[in-house]
Amino acid sequence: MKKNIGSVVGLYPTPSTMIGTVVGDKVNWCNVAHIGIIGLDSIMLSIRKGRYTNLGIKENKTVSVNLVSEDMVVEADYVGLVSGKTVDKSQVFEYHMGELNVPIIDKSPLAMECELVDIYDTKDYDNFILKVVHTHVEEHALDKSGKVDYQKIKPILFEKLTRTYLRTGDVVAQCWNVGREYKNS
Amino acid sequence: MKKNIGSVVGLYPTPSTMIGTVVGDKVNWCNVAHIGIIGLDSIMLSIRKGRYTNLGIKENKTVSVNLVSEDMVVEADYVGLVSGKTVDKSQVFEYHMGELNVPIIDKSPLAMECELVDIYDTKDYDNFILKVVHTHVEEHALDKSGKVDYQKIKPILFEKLTRTYLRTGDVVAQCWNVGREYKNS
Repeated sequence: MKKNIGSVVGLYPTPSTMIGTVVGDKVNWCNVAHIGIIGLDSIMLSIRKGRYTNLGIKENKTVSVNLVSEDMVVEADYVGLVSGKTVDKSQVFEYHMGELNVPIIDKSPLAMECELVDIYDTKDYDNFILKVVHTHVEEHALDKSGKVDYQKIKPILFEKLTRTYLRTGDVVAQCWNVGREYKNS
Repeated sequence: MKKNIGSVVGLYPTPSTMIGTVVGDKVNWCNVAHIGIIGLDSIMLSIRKGRYTNLGIKENKTVSVNLVSEDMVVEADYVGLVSGKTVDKSQVFEYHMGELNVPIIDKSPLAMECELVDIYDTKDYDNFILKVVHTHVEEHALDKSGKVDYQKIKPILFEKLTRTYLRTGDVVAQCWNVGREYKNS
């Protein structure tokens, strides 16, 4: 039996990401899980207007999107507790600069360098539409055919309703495959 | 050590959803995991142009977004293998009609009734921007304070790179909390 709990976004869990920008001349990190996938090559980040990170994305039109492994969770959550306006977060993670001059977290198992394509504007949020240009993956997380193995990455996921980080679980089935077992009774 | 694997969207896993529409006078289902969260009350579905579901969303401006529990995985994957243009999928799931006249899957642990707000157009994809109006949750999946417990829902997640459905794992930590342990060394 279902209960109507009103207008509640329940589309969770989603990957928690560390958004890397350069604001002025300083590296900054932002914790974003309100993400999206658009078409085959683009992603979306929905970030409240006025955040420090937004300045860096608008200024440089580039950004890094770093997945979070379990051993990054304390630092990742800390990044979401303090603003780059008042705290220098550049040293929270060890990083190197990527090809688009965005910071890539050494510890992150998968990091995407992205270019800003557009901003889809809504009342209180900048929704950044980003084209993925370079994807950097830890070699141990690639399978024999060179594909990303999420069982090795195990990115931390987020759900807002009880404010928790969740693990990526194990494999249930193969997509575009298990449905062949369906028999219309 | 990271390897650059080129322009690969690696922002997974994301929730697999069953999109319920009425096309003409027939209920149809579509399997979509290229989703997004926008601001505080809206979501995004990125669906290739020309899909049967897109007709229903554009016609009625309403849609249901049903999370997928593990015992729905065969049916959910089947929905992604065949098109509503040629196959009547209306009987794949038992459902009832919601307040916005969209079909709600009885077995789904969490279903959102949504209104179409906008379509963010990209080359080959309709990116539907939807306002969440009603959220229906199985009562056993609500915790004592009435909040949605994702450990009880355990929605099936999707990652495209090796085409697998993954489980929602267990709790790692509390968000906006565990970061307080961070000490800048």
